[in-house]
Amino acid sequence: MEKVRLSLEEVNALSMRVLTSNGMAEDHARAIARVITAGQRDECHSHGIYRLLVCVRSLREGKLVGDARPQLSELSPAIVRVDAGFGYSQLAFELGSKVLVEKARNVGIAALSINNCFHFSALWPEVEAIASEGLAAVAMTPSHSWVAPAGGTKPVFGTNPIAFAWPRPGRFPFVFDFATSGIARGDIELHRRTGKEIPLGWAVDEAGQPTTDPAAAMRGAMLTFGGHKGSALSAMVELLAGPLLGDLTSLESQKFDEGVGATPCHGELVLAFNPDIFAAGKRAQGDQYAEAMFDAIAGQGARLPSQRRFEARVRSEANGVEVSAQLYADVKALIRN
Amino acid sequence: MEKVRLSLEEVNALSMRVLTSNGMAEDHARAIARVITAGQRDECHSHGIYRLLVCVRSLREGKLVGDARPQLSELSPAIVRVDAGFGYSQLAFELGSKVLVEKARNVGIAALSINNCFHFSALWPEVEAIASEGLAAVAMTPSHSWVAPAGGTKPVFGTNPIAFAWPRPGRFPFVFDFATSGIARGDIELHRRTGKEIPLGWAVDEAGQPTTDPAAAMRGAMLTFGGHKGSALSAMVELLAGPLLGDLTSLESQKFDEGVGATPCHGELVLAFNPDIFAAGKRAQGDQYAEAMFDAIAGQGARLPSQRRFEARVRSEANGVEVSAQLYADVKALIRN
Repeated sequence: MEKVRLSLEEVNALSMRVLTSNGMAEDHARAIARVITAGQRDECHSHGIYRLLVCVRSLREGKLVGDARPQLSELSPAIVRVDAGFGYSQLAFELGSKVLVEKARNVGIAALSINNCFHFSALWPEVEAIASEGLAAVAMTPSHSWVAPAGGTKPVFGTNPIAFAWPRPGRFPFVFDFATSGIARGDIELHRRTGKEIPLGWAVDEAGQPTTDPAAAMRGAMLTFGGHKGSALSAMVELLAGPLLGDLTSLESQKFDEGVGATPCHGELVLAFNPDIFAAGKRAQGDQYAEAMFDAIAGQGARLPSQRRFEARVRSEANGVEVSAQLYADVKALIRN
Repeated sequence: MEKVRLSLEEVNALSMRVLTSNGMAEDHARAIARVITAGQRDECHSHGIYRLLVCVRSLREGKLVGDARPQLSELSPAIVRVDAGFGYSQLAFELGSKVLVEKARNVGIAALSINNCFHFSALWPEVEAIASEGLAAVAMTPSHSWVAPAGGTKPVFGTNPIAFAWPRPGRFPFVFDFATSGIARGDIELHRRTGKEIPLGWAVDEAGQPTTDPAAAMRGAMLTFGGHKGSALSAMVELLAGPLLGDLTSLESQKFDEGVGATPCHGELVLAFNPDIFAAGKRAQGDQYAEAMFDAIAGQGARLPSQRRFEARVRSEANGVEVSAQLYADVKALIRN
């Protein structure tokens, strides 16, 4: 497959042009271009410039408010809420995370509730941003009801990612970010675009039968990872990042979409934990025990989560990124003059 | 196998006699007897009277302080810490959870850090206790390093359970409580006691090879559920319920045990979330969306987690419980006169 090499600056500039020429406000576009560039840089292909196709579709469908002004309110000394006003989540996160960090510094634990946001990005950029402040972080969101619960075949849950970061002074943080579905929906879409079969175990078709056809999977239901345990976690994500926040479950987000196929619109929960307060004087010991655990994992040849992504980051920052020529052409074609 | 039928009062009285006759303080024994009775009542056999065998071994080994006085301190408006003083966790939880609930009512989110506790119980009694106050709850603990990370064969993690509860007015809460290992260690022990093979995928032997022999599994390493995702979650449990709290990882807890084989000693993190504050006026809508999701799960014939346990609870409260005559004899033999 023919490839195009781009610098990170070129990825960012391309993202900005695609977004602003399709009517997105400058500050939203900047926040989104940042996470798309970070996704491409880390070789998370389903969260790189590919996502511009989805963004622009959502913008053009008219559900998304491209110039929404996020409204911040403090619900308590430990909770900040940002109403994204039916815009994308990134600008709301950038606004709210500053207050989240401040609250976690003061109170030790804090929560950011983002409401009424369209959400398409990975969660690792957010938990990494908080870890860079020396705090541990957890983030989760519902999506659209695409995933069947364990023991069922009809979609109820979203792909419902959970992300976590632990700060490691002077090193990349310990980070994971995974869908509680067997796989991210973007990965099934990429299989469909490239005509590849999906492995058994990712999804069932509309009749509830296991399928390797990505199109049938998208009409049927995806499955959770890890059987009933993954399914239970997925329900937790629905409840904590939906009803708890006075926001939508994936079922309700799907209804709100009215069959348009736009990016899911719902809430997001981000938690921050300050070891300086929790550890009650033992932060240095905690850091030491954490590092001993990471050594025990890496020392037996097992990978830490995100290790591939950090290796890609180092490569991309030195040499730029490669994207398929077809995808590059599709994305450039979105630019309106 | 011969069975003995006991009322819940008999289970509780038996637990009290076993514990107090082995030197445990009255208030500790009451708190522990409560969770053991609840475990037997819900037919969680590995958390019923079977656990008395482990409790007494830990008491007799002398590491455990049977009359420890838990010390409570408030680290912030959102964090309460209870130093269990190397006693069992239950009394510390009963003390700390009252303050946790109060903080969550006021601030919307709160954390309970239990430190220096010996911990053997399921976590669902704790998250259910918090849900009974109308709050959502998450709990997690490390244990001893028995579980290999994904991609490895040497033990690093504990069985690292995560539990969650969501309050449902007038009904049993939505609750799950699962080990991030493929299975709870108690289940492997029960297989060994009854001479049954374990399924492939639960563990590897000391040479790192898959095994169906429970004894070989206990000398080797258990595996996480759900591959790299379960492994990542297990690491999160280590970090949030260990180093964050200034307490031990499972590796350190194992060292602290010095080969005695006592119950793991470490920390526990319990989080409480108050929907009345988070939902910013939309709690009723949140409850409605949550119930619609539960209906969508149960309506397609899938089970909610804990459903079997709640069915057992109803049965046991009416008719008492059945335990194997051998186990009953083993437990009665622990009583000292």
